[in-house]
Amino acid sequence: MRIVRLRKGLSEAEKAVAVSRIQELSPGARVIGAGGDAPCFVRVEPKGVDAAAVPAEEFTRLENVQDVIDDAPEYALGSRRLRPEDTAVAVGGGAEGAVVIGGGRPPVVIAGPCAVEGYDQMARVAERLAALGVRLMRAGAYKPRTSPYAFQGLKKQGLEIMARVKREFGMKMVTEVMSGDRIDEVAEVADVLQVGSRNMFHYAMLQELGRQPKPVLLKRGMAAGMHEFLLAAEYVLAGGNRNVILCERGIKTFETATRNTLDLNVVPHVKQKSHLPILVDPSHGTGLRPLVAPMSLAALACGADGLLIEVHDRPEEAVSDGEQSITPVELAALLDAVRGAAAPARDAA
Amino acid sequence: MRIVRLRKGLSEAEKAVAVSRIQELSPGARVIGAGGDAPCFVRVEPKGVDAAAVPAEEFTRLENVQDVIDDAPEYALGSRRLRPEDTAVAVGGGAEGAVVIGGGRPPVVIAGPCAVEGYDQMARVAERLAALGVRLMRAGAYKPRTSPYAFQGLKKQGLEIMARVKREFGMKMVTEVMSGDRIDEVAEVADVLQVGSRNMFHYAMLQELGRQPKPVLLKRGMAAGMHEFLLAAEYVLAGGNRNVILCERGIKTFETATRNTLDLNVVPHVKQKSHLPILVDPSHGTGLRPLVAPMSLAALACGADGLLIEVHDRPEEAVSDGEQSITPVELAALLDAVRGAAAPARDAA
Amino acid sequence: MRIVRLRKGLSEAEKAVAVSRIQELSPGARVIGAGGDAPCFVRVEPKGVDAAAVPAEEFTRLENVQDVIDDAPEYALGSRRLRPEDTAVAVGGGAEGAVVIGGGRPPVVIAGPCAVEGYDQMARVAERLAALGVRLMRAGAYKPRTSPYAFQGLKKQGLEIMARVKREFGMKMVTEVMSGDRIDEVAEVADVLQVGSRNMFHYAMLQELGRQPKPVLLKRGMAAGMHEFLLAAEYVLAGGNRNVILCERGIKTFETATRNTLDLNVVPHVKQKSHLPILVDPSHGTGLRPLVAPMSLAALACGADGLLIEVHDRPEEAVSDGEQSITPVELAALLDAVRGAAAPARDAA
Amino acid sequence: MRIVRLRKGLSEAEKAVAVSRIQELSPGARVIGAGGDAPCFVRVEPKGVDAAAVPAEEFTRLENVQDVIDDAPEYALGSRRLRPEDTAVAVGGGAEGAVVIGGGRPPVVIAGPCAVEGYDQMARVAERLAALGVRLMRAGAYKPRTSPYAFQGLKKQGLEIMARVKREFGMKMVTEVMSGDRIDEVAEVADVLQVGSRNMFHYAMLQELGRQPKPVLLKRGMAAGMHEFLLAAEYVLAGGNRNVILCERGIKTFETATRNTLDLNVVPHVKQKSHLPILVDPSHGTGLRPLVAPMSLAALACGADGLLIEVHDRPEEAVSDGEQSITPVELAALLDAVRGAAAPARDAA
Repeated sequence: MRIVRLRKGLSEAEKAVAVSRIQELSPGARVIGAGGDAPCFVRVEPKGVDAAAVPAEEFTRLENVQDVIDDAPEYALGSRRLRPEDTAVAVGGGAEGAVVIGGGRPPVVIAGPCAVEGYDQMARVAERLAALGVRLMRAGAYKPRTSPYAFQGLKKQGLEIMARVKREFGMKMVTEVMSGDRIDEVAEVADVLQVGSRNMFHYAMLQELGRQPKPVLLKRGMAAGMHEFLLAAEYVLAGGNRNVILCERGIKTFETATRNTLDLNVVPHVKQKSHLPILVDPSHGTGLRPLVAPMSLAALACGADGLLIEVHDRPEEAVSDGEQSITPVELAALLDAVRGAAAPARDAA
Repeated sequence: MRIVRLRKGLSEAEKAVAVSRIQELSPGARVIGAGGDAPCFVRVEPKGVDAAAVPAEEFTRLENVQDVIDDAPEYALGSRRLRPEDTAVAVGGGAEGAVVIGGGRPPVVIAGPCAVEGYDQMARVAERLAALGVRLMRAGAYKPRTSPYAFQGLKKQGLEIMARVKREFGMKMVTEVMSGDRIDEVAEVADVLQVGSRNMFHYAMLQELGRQPKPVLLKRGMAAGMHEFLLAAEYVLAGGNRNVILCERGIKTFETATRNTLDLNVVPHVKQKSHLPILVDPSHGTGLRPLVAPMSLAALACGADGLLIEVHDRPEEAVSDGEQSITPVELAALLDAVRGAAAPARDAA
Repeated sequence: MRIVRLRKGLSEAEKAVAVSRIQELSPGARVIGAGGDAPCFVRVEPKGVDAAAVPAEEFTRLENVQDVIDDAPEYALGSRRLRPEDTAVAVGGGAEGAVVIGGGRPPVVIAGPCAVEGYDQMARVAERLAALGVRLMRAGAYKPRTSPYAFQGLKKQGLEIMARVKREFGMKMVTEVMSGDRIDEVAEVADVLQVGSRNMFHYAMLQELGRQPKPVLLKRGMAAGMHEFLLAAEYVLAGGNRNVILCERGIKTFETATRNTLDLNVVPHVKQKSHLPILVDPSHGTGLRPLVAPMSLAALACGADGLLIEVHDRPEEAVSDGEQSITPVELAALLDAVRGAAAPARDAA
Repeated sequence: MRIVRLRKGLSEAEKAVAVSRIQELSPGARVIGAGGDAPCFVRVEPKGVDAAAVPAEEFTRLENVQDVIDDAPEYALGSRRLRPEDTAVAVGGGAEGAVVIGGGRPPVVIAGPCAVEGYDQMARVAERLAALGVRLMRAGAYKPRTSPYAFQGLKKQGLEIMARVKREFGMKMVTEVMSGDRIDEVAEVADVLQVGSRNMFHYAMLQELGRQPKPVLLKRGMAAGMHEFLLAAEYVLAGGNRNVILCERGIKTFETATRNTLDLNVVPHVKQKSHLPILVDPSHGTGLRPLVAPMSLAALACGADGLLIEVHDRPEEAVSDGEQSITPVELAALLDAVRGAAAPARDAA
């Protein structure tokens, strides 16, 4: 794909003039990713006589055009071709300050139960997490379950519990949103809006998430290739929201020994192709508690920006995902191992 | 799962009494699928002391309980265990009468372009379809595309074109809905609301589709096993809408010679386990025009209730899916072959 | 790939001269598929300066060169580009005459138990098959089993039982060979040498099977794409044995509701790209007895040249694969349905 | 599965008596894994009245029976249930001493080109490897190639080159064997006999590899689940050869961005279930040079006993697999990173 980049700091009027000049050369051209002070890119349709026939110099000699980027991938805004430097996403804020994900920061750990089951459960886990220095908590109020008869989450009540736990324990919350018309409701409590694996292809919702400012944690679809994964992120980016965090959580394969096949290849591959941060969820990626710690270490070793881990203080009583949840004690050991493993890399930097 | 079936024709008050008696025996019990004059089933939670401990006779001797069905699958309402006879879904109505899908009727063919591209294209195709006796037309106004920069459908304008083509050519329309907040808008025109493969796991939308009466064409998720497929249908059925039509359209596998791997195993398997009609989409299931006709014949040979086929009068100019669209001339030949192949089966019946 | 075809009926000396002339133009050129009176093709290396630089006319004007075929697929000998007419494989012979597979003949049915379990079992099944007009029997003497502790077949004794059943019931035998050093032993009894799915990539054995004349039934590897499948066949063809019969038997996917995912797409796809006959094994392709009959009909509807079906007279006692074996009574019903379905196609031809 | 373990150090006569006593209780019982001074296990058939009916004490009170192990997995000899301590495989020997793989030793690196292309190429690479402290070299003389027309390896000549490089550079050689009748020939040069992914299901060869003493490097089949992988190893172990090294090399999935999907889940999973060492091949597991280093680090972080890496000094000229081969310079950097990452784990031990 051919992208024409405009100079930085143009006024809206200057942009409009430049775009219309470009459209004279290539009628299908349209602006992508120009939210706020973001750089302004114009996508020139890859198909058709016009774009192919026009030499790059025809564009570069136009006023306020900085350069022409040819062979940009279809996931242009998410690509390193257009933006070489790592994206750092700031989560939350307030008194405790934001937690930053990506941008070369030390790996973050987001931990918590599969579902909000009640205040007591959330408070017990939050207390343990806080004591371990974990500042980002995950938990589901709206739960996508395979069966309509299974527990679907505490919904509004779950959000209220989360809000209370945020206040009381200073946690930042990551929680799932399952439809466009719930974004506002969930965003009132959530610091990060999670898109679950089942909804990665729910493009209508991704478009709406692009029009609001909260960070979006986009889990890879269980049948999505890397290309589709980055294009799902592009749906959010194209709407103007640049705070996208990717998350590998395992794909569907013939292997039945584990719940999913955690595809860590995607981690360095995404890091090379894209500037977006990427986390790994070893809980869903394995489905088995004894595999969570080793796969967490593997994820960080190949460059993940952090982990999303299911933690429950009484896994055997968990309403869902108990067999893949670790305990706070196991999390403590994992965090020690993570910090140990990270040390030499830090020293080498 | 244990299901307690109430007698037919009970008043709401009688049902309420029976249910509360059942709940005395098994507190987690709840009614499923009691819309209108549908049979009333009470799902007894499979987990827990209560259900396991209580002998079936404790339920059957209650007033207005017809029987107890043990070992019902989790997709209870969609299962043949609860409803042995085939479901027949009536589509449309009006002057030309409804078209019935399933219930042992001869296979239906739903044909049309991937996307509404304009009135002229739709009218040309509709005219050809009508001449071939095809009464159900498919076309997308809202299109889920892998890239946010690809053509996303004509949207509202596309729906208006469909409405006009319906009037002028007496077609019934099958078209996709991509989010819960568009259901009303799309349902104004659509005779069948299609849920695309990418949205089969979009449970929030499935629940809303269960609360409205229009037939739902549920395409199998590209990574959904048969069990998950039937449970997605159960989301709609559990909401009270019994007009669900399944559609196999190929799954994701390692095979790259075809766009998807059409899994025809699922057709007889679903027919044996469920009373719902199932169609096959050989266009997406193969991605290659020369495979559409033979795989259509295979689909019907193993029991499919009909076909969903992409037809474009100028495939090479199609905005999307041109390489898997057949022409009206090819469709005519296919329909001849279908009618020829169906003859002996019909005669034998 | 570029192929230079020599004229038919050349002497070895004439061929040698022609080939050396071709090699002067393209040093990497080598003869493929010149067994007996087969047409002589010379494969010109697709890589390198020589082949690309030399115009086709340089080859066609050489003495005894018939023509140049450009863009032949890598599976050249198996492709319709080199041989447009269907291959028909004659199986067996002797007093009862051969059974012909492919070449537009009516579909064949190969039936029998997973494994030879003893003479009585084989005789009982053979008698029933003979009564149903089935002339090709399948059964394993050497069995590839996932566990080294599972029954591995009766081996030599199994072959002896097969030999007796052949004599007594006039059956032709299809049985598996698992290593190159067993080919001679198995070929003494077998009319068709079967290569199991697990050994489709066992190229060393395929090469040896190419050097002997018995027909080879090549089952698709459970992880082989169509391209790899046709190239495995090419290993046999390249050795000089043109009697190759393909067999689709299901691939490995995420779907666990069936033992494998039967990929019928491959049937018409192979028929379009290759002249080789292709059978379908609905027993392994589904793993479930109630799916065998409908998937048999589907296989034939999309163009399969025949079926490979596990039949056991006492499936519940079978040492292996009992749950996917049908009974002789079920086979009789299936054969009736097959003949009914085939009638109109035959009449239409 | 039920296993009866005999006491250590029994004479053959004592073993025979004990086994016949066990067989009186359970006629299907048979000895597994009794090569040399290995512990003697007797597998009691899991099926049938006898094994289920007989209480464990009936076996334990027999003379020379140590204990009864119930619920052993089908891959008994490879399981930690029967042998809790890690297996360490000694490779080579001679003047430089053996290299030990597994058993808690620091990770080994096996490096070298895909194929032996000639003496010069091998010598250049071996010299570089030796300088980096790498003592195990991989290279193929017999190559399984998808196309019969592709380079199939230098075969006998390739083995001779390997033998010379071994002598001159003190390397230990890992090379593939593709059929049972080549084992002796290959084993004359090889220190480790590699079974390629395509031949993991080639049980006839695995059985022969079990009857000879050289270590076997068993690559996971591209469509093999962990259970099948461990059972393939069991074929070798059951023959009496305990020197089995597993190797994860990627599986086939829908993902096309990488050549295979490297399934690192299998590493800690195998380590927990089995005592066998497991290596990882990031070259085939990714197919992309820039992913080799990060995935190597990930493999070791989750517990792999070593790496199998394709190294070519001129990847762009490699006859095969050039795009996934790293250079000696890149290998040097990777080895530095590996040693850095291993340090804290070593210190902590």
